[in-house]
Amino acid sequence: MLDPAISEKLRTNEAGLVPVVVQEATTREVLMLAWMDEEALSRSLATGRATYWSRSRREYWVKGETSGNVQHVRRIALDCDGDTLLMEVDQTGPACHTNTTTCFTGRDLDGLHTEP
Amino acid sequence: MLDPAISEKLRTNEAGLVPVVVQEATTREVLMLAWMDEEALSRSLATGRATYWSRSRREYWVKGETSGNVQHVRRIALDCDGDTLLMEVDQTGPACHTNTTTCFTGRDLDGLHTEP
Repeated sequence: MLDPAISEKLRTNEAGLVPVVVQEATTREVLMLAWMDEEALSRSLATGRATYWSRSRREYWVKGETSGNVQHVRRIALDCDGDTLLMEVDQTGPACHTNTTTCFTGRDLDGLHTEP
Repeated sequence: MLDPAISEKLRTNEAGLVPVVVQEATTREVLMLAWMDEEALSRSLATGRATYWSRSRREYWVKGETSGNVQHVRRIALDCDGDTLLMEVDQTGPACHTNTTTCFTGRDLDGLHTEP
């Protein structure tokens, strides 16, 4: 069960979830965005292994459990209005299921205005 | 209007929005999480100024318009499944409305298990 002091500050959405920004502690790259409910956050804090709620499979998901690309949690912070988490991790292997380093690698959008 | 090639890849939620992870281009700090609809993304790309959809005020919001703490957009990437954006910006001043550098600064959660 999640620490009541944290639960009190956490503002989940209508599905009981908060988005989690996952950042590599050493490279500082943003790896992915995932979702947690209170139980996933409680498990991540208690075990030091990143644990999410899979919205598509509707189950808890320990990152790397099947792929081996685990995430050791170094820090979790809650934002100013309590509805987003930032988690720093040590990532083993690629973070993305497509085998890219991050879920954003090589996926820049075209057409950005740049000032002269 | 958003470039149809981007619109085709973008998977918004039931409210027509996607979460945007905002990262400082130089310090690599994660500053905040915000939300965009297609129009906010189109405006951010066209103007090079971070523009979001405010869910509480139900209006477009050019970051820094009132505070002066603007965000110049350096890069926008769409993740592997098309439902999250990562935006790198040059941030002027503090990113958070509470005047902290980021919305996560000084807000670490206690109780994280650390391996010996």
